Amino acid sequence: MPSIKTSAVEMVKAIKKGEISSEELVKIYIKQIKKKEKDVQAFQFFDEELVIAQAKKLDTLHQANQHGDLHGIPVGVKDIFDTVDMPTEDGTDIHKNNPSLNDCTVVSKLKQAGAIIMGKTVTTELAYYSPGKTKNPHDLSRTPGGSSSGSAAAVASHMVPLAVGSQTNGSVIRPASYCGVVGYKPTKGLISRHLVMQVSRTLDQVGIFANSIEDVALISEQLIGYDKQDPDTSLNPKPKLLSASREKPPMEPLFAYIKLPFMDKLDEDAVEGFKEVKEELKGKVDEIELPKGFAKIPEWQQVIMESDMASSFSEEYKNSKNKLSDKIIEAIERGMKYTSIEYNNALSQIDVANTYFKQFFHDYDAIITPSSTGEAPKNLKSTGDPIFCTLWTYCGMPSISLPLLQGKNGLPIGVQLVSSLFDDERLFRNANWLANKIKK
Amino acid sequence: MPSIKTSAVEMVKAIKKGEISSEELVKIYIKQIKKKEKDVQAFQFFDEELVIAQAKKLDTLHQANQHGDLHGIPVGVKDIFDTVDMPTEDGTDIHKNNPSLNDCTVVSKLKQAGAIIMGKTVTTELAYYSPGKTKNPHDLSRTPGGSSSGSAAAVASHMVPLAVGSQTNGSVIRPASYCGVVGYKPTKGLISRHLVMQVSRTLDQVGIFANSIEDVALISEQLIGYDKQDPDTSLNPKPKLLSASREKPPMEPLFAYIKLPFMDKLDEDAVEGFKEVKEELKGKVDEIELPKGFAKIPEWQQVIMESDMASSFSEEYKNSKNKLSDKIIEAIERGMKYTSIEYNNALSQIDVANTYFKQFFHDYDAIITPSSTGEAPKNLKSTGDPIFCTLWTYCGMPSISLPLLQGKNGLPIGVQLVSSLFDDERLFRNANWLANKIKK
Repeated sequence: MPSIKTSAVEMVKAIKKGEISSEELVKIYIKQIKKKEKDVQAFQFFDEELVIAQAKKLDTLHQANQHGDLHGIPVGVKDIFDTVDMPTEDGTDIHKNNPSLNDCTVVSKLKQAGAIIMGKTVTTELAYYSPGKTKNPHDLSRTPGGSSSGSAAAVASHMVPLAVGSQTNGSVIRPASYCGVVGYKPTKGLISRHLVMQVSRTLDQVGIFANSIEDVALISEQLIGYDKQDPDTSLNPKPKLLSASREKPPMEPLFAYIKLPFMDKLDEDAVEGFKEVKEELKGKVDEIELPKGFAKIPEWQQVIMESDMASSFSEEYKNSKNKLSDKIIEAIERGMKYTSIEYNNALSQIDVANTYFKQFFHDYDAIITPSSTGEAPKNLKSTGDPIFCTLWTYCGMPSISLPLLQGKNGLPIGVQLVSSLFDDERLFRNANWLANKIKK
Repeated sequence: MPSIKTSAVEMVKAIKKGEISSEELVKIYIKQIKKKEKDVQAFQFFDEELVIAQAKKLDTLHQANQHGDLHGIPVGVKDIFDTVDMPTEDGTDIHKNNPSLNDCTVVSKLKQAGAIIMGKTVTTELAYYSPGKTKNPHDLSRTPGGSSSGSAAAVASHMVPLAVGSQTNGSVIRPASYCGVVGYKPTKGLISRHLVMQVSRTLDQVGIFANSIEDVALISEQLIGYDKQDPDTSLNPKPKLLSASREKPPMEPLFAYIKLPFMDKLDEDAVEGFKEVKEELKGKVDEIELPKGFAKIPEWQQVIMESDMASSFSEEYKNSKNKLSDKIIEAIERGMKYTSIEYNNALSQIDVANTYFKQFFHDYDAIITPSSTGEAPKNLKSTGDPIFCTLWTYCGMPSISLPLLQGKNGLPIGVQLVSSLFDDERLFRNANWLANKIKK
């Protein structure tokens, strides 16, 4: 009989075999929500009746022997993804009364696969820095990270087995690191952002949270695919992530540990942790310095993100500035001042950086790097520093955070693997290899 | 025996059958160049020996029964397309000594198809407004139009049967109109711009000149196709333009004559000409007004083009400003001042406009509209006004200019047809229909 700690992969099998009904399964999670939510506060919207109604419908389909690949599995969805039967507030009072006309592509694909939309998980204000109400399940005085705060915390506290978030800088990998779950940001263009609140068309990517690499692969396979309503989605063949997450790489992988220009931001216990990881990987990891120009990427990322925010949030700024946080007002106002040349330059360097990495990944199987500066900061007014995600998001490369390290307070710290563009299968094979290696 | 007025389609057949050798054919054109070039000055680079050497090589291949689809056909190439064996000067002294490392994709595809690269045709300065030396073959005191001045004039004076140019605003359709040839700007993304001098990544498109719709189709089919070195090229199926150029539309087409907000720029004789065309098409053409917002497109086009010019030509501006014309300096300096918000807004309206036209082309088969404000202006210091091309280039829609009208000085005026994105086959069918209809 599945429990809240059973993997989603196993739950799907159990439901299909009739060992448990969708309604029974979802009630186990509802119970857990009732136990945890008052402390963790991961949900912006949760309606028990709506959830049970979905489960009942899925049980009817089960009777008719119709099963989707996520049949009966509860999924938390960040509150910037449009849902036709739940409100979408984008972490701001300004959008409180904007009902959605339709489900976004991600939610519609989840429903088609038989998933239960468990509720809308808390986002920071407009998916930028100002925190929502969510707390870190491992220590309620600490941030869960952001902007996908609720999705990471809900998975970490087993209120859902799977959740969807988004990343424009470090909004998936960082909360995954702080909350001790697996977080995955696919290659740019793999998952549609149609009817997801836009921060930056260039940088925004959908991301996934789960408690295992395999579970991340399970849901990702349902979401990846070209969508003509998001013209930036890719026509490349879909990566087979589920099989990759169970495979060994053809040869023992060679990792690159990159000495980033902001390495001094890493906490001491994270430095220690990575020393041990490198020791464990002896002979299979090289320390690498990037060309000096890469030090400019955080600046370029900021130019793109803030310029795009100034466009994306121009209505909110014009009509409801008094309801915006100082932090986001400052970002928008910086964004209003960049010239089109600065913007174009920042954009054009993306291809240049990727040309470098294309060659780089002939020599290395994956980059191994911290997911965050260390444990979740003891501070609920901030969501921590995304700097260890910035380069990879800017380039659009796929990355995954694995909860492999522990800090000096016993809190999780993620190890991030990064692969080259559209090499998500290789990322999953190497993640599986590394998770097995470090566990031993 | 083919003459300079034989169509390229017929020439290919004649060469294949052995009725004429490549060398003989190219010598007919060399003779024409010697006769016309001193007046028209369409070529920036022409090397008789190089051309004859290419023809001899093709005759050897003919002996071995190896024929490309453009076997032995001379093609003029605008002097912004990189060529490994000819200089590429981009219409500016600043680039006089920049030999190319490789052929651009277009030239490489032409060579693969057996075409003879006849020489480099004159472009305006950096493909912007300041004219080169070329004159209008119909009246040497008039502009051939720009920026693809030499390509249009070389085809009009039968110095080549086919030529390649580019359009960022009206640089193919306008010179085609002034020179009385067929000009074609394919849907955005159909032809690779790899190693073509970039003015604006968003707006630049490769275009084609020939003396018939069929000949335009012949060469276009060789050039269209995805190129990973131009990531903006499309993976859509290749349109079958050659068969489309010979087909009738399934039903008599319905045209839309759009009352553009700048209709007052049209010369009186062009107004008269279009009155006659509309009379001829009675019952098959509706007069349409666009939503008011479309009046802003020329402004948005300018924001994108000048912003991108400021980026593309930053080196030239910084290091060789004294060698740039006042006109281009002004454009670059305006480009330096737009904010990223203005730029992003101008970009984002492209999709909005295309959403409108998508619906529009359910009701109409093609837009019929002037290619230029009228006959070529009697002025060699300007290349005329591109305004009748701006909307369609901005949207990326395919368009073709047909030399169907004559102005009060007996000079040609083009009729432009425009289709919806990726509907280039329909464009060619309707162009064929219209050319037959008006000829009668």
